[in-house]
Amino acid sequence: LTKPEPYTPIEWRDGRVRYLDQTHLPNEEIVRETADWENVVSAIKRLAIRGAPLIGIAAAYAVVLAAMTFRQRREKLERAIQVIGNARPTAVNLSSAASRMLSVLPTGGAALPVDVPDLLLVEARRIHEEERHACEAISLHGVSLFSRPIDVLTICNTGPLATGGIGTAFGILHTAWSNGLIRRVYACETRPLLQGARLTIWECMKHGIPATLINDSAAGHLMQTGKVGAVVTGADRIAMNGDVANKIGTYMLAVLCEAHRIPFYTAAPSSSVDVTVRTGENIVIEERSADEITMFQGKPIAPSGTHALAPAFDFTPARFITAIVTERGIHRKPFQFDSREQIAGPGTS
Amino acid sequence: LTKPEPYTPIEWRDGRVRYLDQTHLPNEEIVRETADWENVVSAIKRLAIRGAPLIGIAAAYAVVLAAMTFRQRREKLERAIQVIGNARPTAVNLSSAASRMLSVLPTGGAALPVDVPDLLLVEARRIHEEERHACEAISLHGVSLFSRPIDVLTICNTGPLATGGIGTAFGILHTAWSNGLIRRVYACETRPLLQGARLTIWECMKHGIPATLINDSAAGHLMQTGKVGAVVTGADRIAMNGDVANKIGTYMLAVLCEAHRIPFYTAAPSSSVDVTVRTGENIVIEERSADEITMFQGKPIAPSGTHALAPAFDFTPARFITAIVTERGIHRKPFQFDSREQIAGPGTS
Repeated sequence: LTKPEPYTPIEWRDGRVRYLDQTHLPNEEIVRETADWENVVSAIKRLAIRGAPLIGIAAAYAVVLAAMTFRQRREKLERAIQVIGNARPTAVNLSSAASRMLSVLPTGGAALPVDVPDLLLVEARRIHEEERHACEAISLHGVSLFSRPIDVLTICNTGPLATGGIGTAFGILHTAWSNGLIRRVYACETRPLLQGARLTIWECMKHGIPATLINDSAAGHLMQTGKVGAVVTGADRIAMNGDVANKIGTYMLAVLCEAHRIPFYTAAPSSSVDVTVRTGENIVIEERSADEITMFQGKPIAPSGTHALAPAFDFTPARFITAIVTERGIHRKPFQFDSREQIAGPGTS
Repeated sequence: LTKPEPYTPIEWRDGRVRYLDQTHLPNEEIVRETADWENVVSAIKRLAIRGAPLIGIAAAYAVVLAAMTFRQRREKLERAIQVIGNARPTAVNLSSAASRMLSVLPTGGAALPVDVPDLLLVEARRIHEEERHACEAISLHGVSLFSRPIDVLTICNTGPLATGGIGTAFGILHTAWSNGLIRRVYACETRPLLQGARLTIWECMKHGIPATLINDSAAGHLMQTGKVGAVVTGADRIAMNGDVANKIGTYMLAVLCEAHRIPFYTAAPSSSVDVTVRTGENIVIEERSADEITMFQGKPIAPSGTHALAPAFDFTPARFITAIVTERGIHRKPFQFDSREQIAGPGTS
């Protein structure tokens, strides 16, 4: 994990945010640079920057950019922080990063002190650093789930591109593979935006991990034919009872795992735990535009006028989850997440 | 069902096969016409003509074209029939249509009688007509599965485009909808070739059936949120014990149905029953080219060099299937298909 990453999904450099525009991967590696906080918001909205932890980091840097723009005007900055925190609804990291940045603002009148951008930058860098460390801890804890070399299935993208660190589920896969405990990663392509095909396969290749791409709908067949030893996924939000909101299709994998007696693991930093939400049913599932299903790369793939439903996430009840891995350790049922700082429960190890 | 179809997937006209090239739907309705049997084989291979019953019909007409080409040369014709019957491996209709056509050839020496093309055309037309009638009977039997208006989920394409008649699963959906027993059809897009998005939505629109497109991976979420009253799918091959080979993703739907206590119905003509196969495990699952997953409309959607698995079908064990509808009636567990001509079993009604 000390080896430098072969690519940098986001960084703060010379008063600007530099990020890899993930909408062009794997065909082009386009790095964009901006000093405009609204550009970062739109990059989050259009998924150029994506992944629950990474959009939290991006949000934090966006707040710094907003502070550099609005300088001492508290009201403007606070409004910008609100816009940033609401760029997308499902991942809690976004709003919690925004709240943390807000809490850094000194109390007082309408005029902020001149050093606020610097204060905010320290906090943004801390958020980034924490996510990096969380990934490393998740990876190290997660390896203990594996005892003999198996093939593992994952969905969506949970590597550096999603997290700013080595990854959550991907971090575990990477570390377990480095230790000879994973032979091959099967990646669900992850419709509609194909993060599995475009990003996870790309990241596996960059790191040298043997990977095989499948259609999401082939997961059942793969399990039925004995090809999957475990499923490991990330999480966009975790409720207090351990219900998990994650990429659409995750729930399907969990049900299939139960039917085939295959362990189903969720990996996420505790920043993805939302202690304001008791169960997954209370998590807002983002509905994306129907175009994401009916169009592909600007071309229609369904008749014009097609009615479509495009939920971006689904929720997996805790009972389907074998273990949740956070930077604090391996959590087992019954899950009981108390507060962001304090994760405990009978099964915590 | 007496209303003329708004489109014609295949027909014999003036000594030629005319077919709608399904690879261009829904964007263009391109009708091709050929007198070359090998063109029909390649149309089947590249899925311009597809759907288990329809490729049986196409194969029969292709044999007529071959007979018109080879005239009295038995050996050439018999070899062509073999090539036609092996154009694709999973659907039994193809090889059984080829066998039927072969059995029409008069016994005797190397030279066939001059009227062989006419004899073969009679048989090909009979096969087409039988498939049409089977669809009508399936539709009428299938309606009895519904007693109150519900929303139904399907996968792939099972309408006129797949069958040459009103359809198998689609025929049931169409008839039940006409009778007020289905409100809406949810169509899985059906990766990798998007037959659901491109063809089923198109056919629903042509027939006026309210339809909603979803990603395959959203099926679990849809069931979890109570939106699916039943799943109805077609079948590419049915084993004697009722195990069903069908489009990749069908098995996933069956497992999800069991987990949500939603009925799962298979609809197919008895020509899809393969009495040489005792259980689904013995059915050959066609592996398609990795390009079907890694490319989309000629453009890469995964990194170059991606390793991919592309099973075109999966098999659903009989225990997951609530009922199988054929032109003979509703079959219930334990399924017991004896021979193509004789379908019987304790649950047959």
